[in-house]
Amino acid sequence: MSAVLRPGSTLGILGGGQLGRYMAIAAQQRGYRIAVLDPEPDAPAHQVAHQAIVAPYDDPEALERLASLCQVVTFEFENVPASSLAPFARRGVAIRPGPRVLAICQDRIAEKTLIGSCGIETAPWHPIHGENDLEPALAALGGAGILKTARSGYDGKGQARVETVSAAREAYARFGSVDCVLEGIVPFALECSVLAARDVHGVCATHPVCENAHSRHILDVTVCPARVGEAAARAMRGHTARLAEELEYVGHLAVEFFVLPDGRVVVNEIAPRPHNSGHLTLDAAANSQFEQHVRCVLGWPVARYEQTAPAAAMANLLGDGWAAGEPRWESLTEFPEVRLHLYGKAQARPGRKMGHLTAMADSVEQAESLVREARRALFG
Amino acid sequence: MSAVLRPGSTLGILGGGQLGRYMAIAAQQRGYRIAVLDPEPDAPAHQVAHQAIVAPYDDPEALERLASLCQVVTFEFENVPASSLAPFARRGVAIRPGPRVLAICQDRIAEKTLIGSCGIETAPWHPIHGENDLEPALAALGGAGILKTARSGYDGKGQARVETVSAAREAYARFGSVDCVLEGIVPFALECSVLAARDVHGVCATHPVCENAHSRHILDVTVCPARVGEAAARAMRGHTARLAEELEYVGHLAVEFFVLPDGRVVVNEIAPRPHNSGHLTLDAAANSQFEQHVRCVLGWPVARYEQTAPAAAMANLLGDGWAAGEPRWESLTEFPEVRLHLYGKAQARPGRKMGHLTAMADSVEQAESLVREARRALFG
Repeated sequence: MSAVLRPGSTLGILGGGQLGRYMAIAAQQRGYRIAVLDPEPDAPAHQVAHQAIVAPYDDPEALERLASLCQVVTFEFENVPASSLAPFARRGVAIRPGPRVLAICQDRIAEKTLIGSCGIETAPWHPIHGENDLEPALAALGGAGILKTARSGYDGKGQARVETVSAAREAYARFGSVDCVLEGIVPFALECSVLAARDVHGVCATHPVCENAHSRHILDVTVCPARVGEAAARAMRGHTARLAEELEYVGHLAVEFFVLPDGRVVVNEIAPRPHNSGHLTLDAAANSQFEQHVRCVLGWPVARYEQTAPAAAMANLLGDGWAAGEPRWESLTEFPEVRLHLYGKAQARPGRKMGHLTAMADSVEQAESLVREARRALFG
Repeated sequence: MSAVLRPGSTLGILGGGQLGRYMAIAAQQRGYRIAVLDPEPDAPAHQVAHQAIVAPYDDPEALERLASLCQVVTFEFENVPASSLAPFARRGVAIRPGPRVLAICQDRIAEKTLIGSCGIETAPWHPIHGENDLEPALAALGGAGILKTARSGYDGKGQARVETVSAAREAYARFGSVDCVLEGIVPFALECSVLAARDVHGVCATHPVCENAHSRHILDVTVCPARVGEAAARAMRGHTARLAEELEYVGHLAVEFFVLPDGRVVVNEIAPRPHNSGHLTLDAAANSQFEQHVRCVLGWPVARYEQTAPAAAMANLLGDGWAAGEPRWESLTEFPEVRLHLYGKAQARPGRKMGHLTAMADSVEQAESLVREARRALFG
C-alpha cells in the first residue's frame, strides 16, 4: 500500500494565518485541495483555500464539516484544543503531527520533561502548580527567573521576568494562577533555531542552523547559517532530530535553542509546525519548510533540506511599520536582491506580522544588512 | 506618483487554467487579492483565487463584476474577445498587456506583419482571404505548406499540412473558410522559445533560450539552455526584446522560434502570456515567469531573469498518462531531484495538461533524462 495520499485529495488545516497560507500554497502546487478552518472571515489562508470554513476552533459542527472534507489534517499553531481533534480521529482522518505531539508541546511542563528525558539540556526550571511553589523555585534559581504559563503562551505573551518573590506572586496572580514554569535566566550568547521535517517512514532532514534576533519578544531578523561553531551546530541539529524521533513526529518542526558563551546549547522550546525563522527557506532552499511540511503530512518522503545560497537573511515586517501610512513600496526597487512577501492582511496592527523580506548573499552580514536597509527604506 | 499598485489591491485574471493559477499564487505571495473569471466551476485558478466568477468570457454581467472588483486585469490566453475588455477600459482598470497586443497576437496576419515590419524573419507566408488565394500561395511556397487559421488556433488545432491545391481547399473548407495564412515549411533543426518580461518603465528582461520538443503538436519536453550557438541565442533574445518593445508590452511573453540548420532563426509565433516552456522557471530561476508577469502587470520593476542551475528540464504530464489508472506517485520517491507539479484538474483527458516535472542538473542531457525517466516510472 502506498503511503502517498493521492493528489486531488484534501488537506485540512486548522488555522488560517500566514503559516496555513503557505502550507496551502505548497500543497496546491502538488495538486491537493485545501480546506481551512479559522474564525476570521478574511484570514490569509482562507483567501487561497478551496474551502474556507469560518468558525471558532472548538465549533463542533465546523470541525465535523472539516473532518468530512479532508483525508489528512494538520495545524499551524500548537494551541489547538485536544477536543477539537476528536472528530478527525473518529472519522479516521490522519492527524499529522499526531495528538501526542500537540499534548506535549501545549504544555511546557510536559515538553521540558520530555526534553530532559532525552538527556538534552534546557534552562534550569521548576514546575509551579501553586503559589507556594514560587519561593523555593526562585531560591533554587538564585533569586531571578522567568515565569511562563505552562500553556497558551506565544511571542512573549504569558511571560514575566521576576526577581523577587512578591513580583513572582504578582505575575502568577496576573496569569490567573494557572500552572506555570519558573525558568532560570540563561546568559545566552545567541538564539538559534533548527528547522526539521520528518516523514512517515521516520526519515528526518534538518536545515542548517538559523540565528535569530528578537525585538520586544517577537522575532525580528533571522540569518542562516548561524554564526556558531561546528560542534554547537552539530549538537543542535542532532538534538532536533532526536526530539523529532522521540515525538514520533510527522511534519515540520522547529526547535529553539540558546547558545551559551561557552558553546553549550540548551533547548528553549519546540514549535510543532513551520516556524517564522524558516521563512527564508521560501527563497533560499530548494524545498521550503512549507513544502517539507506538506510532503511529510501527505505521505511523501522528506526532501533534501539545504540552503541554495552561501547566506540568507529574513526580516519581519510588523504592522508598526504601517503607523505612518502605506509603506514606500517603490523604495524596494532600489533593492533588486530583496524579495517581498506579504500575507494579505488588511489590518496593520502593532506587533502583527504582515509580511517579511528575504535576501541571499555571500555572507550573513551582507544578507542581513540588505534586509535591514530595505526595511528601513520601506518604513521611512 | 507610484507605478506600483498597492498590495491588497485586486488583480483580475481572465482564464482559470494552470497559467492563471500560477499567476494567482505569485501575486498572492506579494499580498494581492485575486479575482478569476472562467466558465469552469472547478478551474485550477478558481481553486486558489479569493473571488471565483464562474461564467463565459463574453458574459457582460460577469465582466462588469470582475471589472468592479479589480484594479488591474490580465489574461492567461490570447483569445479573449476584444469586446470583453470594454468594461475594464470603461472603468479605468489597467489592461496588461494592452488591447493592441491582444488584437495583434490574436491574428496571425497582423502578428506576422508586425514581425516583418521589425525586420525579423518568419517562415515565408501568404495571407489567405478566400479560396482563390490558395493556389498562387501554394505555388509560391514550392507546392507545400501549412495552412493555419488566422485566429483561435493552439496546440496544433486549426492547422493542416497541405501538399496539393485540393488538399489545401479541403482544409480551408474544413476550417470554415475563415481567414488563414499559408506558411512555407521550414526545415528547422530545433524549436526554441525565449521568455521575456517587460515592465511599465519599458525595461525588458529575457531568460536564457529554451529548447522545446513537441509531440503531436503539444509541448512535451523543454530544456534550458538550448543547445544552439551563441550568435543564434543572442539573436533570439534580441528579437524578443525588440518585439516586446514594438508591442509596448507590459507583462510576460514568449516568442517561439525555429532555428535553421545554418543557424538562422525565424519567429514561429508570439505568445502574449507566460508559456508552457517557461514552467521550469518555477524551480530553476530566482523569479519564475509568473512572478515576472505579475511584477510587471502590478507596476513593479521587472527582476533579473536567469537560471539558478547550469541546466534545467521540464516534461509535461498529459492526461494520457492516466489512461491505465492513477499514476504511480510512489515511484517518484526514486527521483529525489525531480519536482512534481499538478494543476488540480479532476478529469484526466488525453492531451490535457495535468501537471509537469522539473529537474535541475549539470547538463541539459542529465536534466532531460531525469524528467523523462521519472515520467516513465510514473506512467509505467
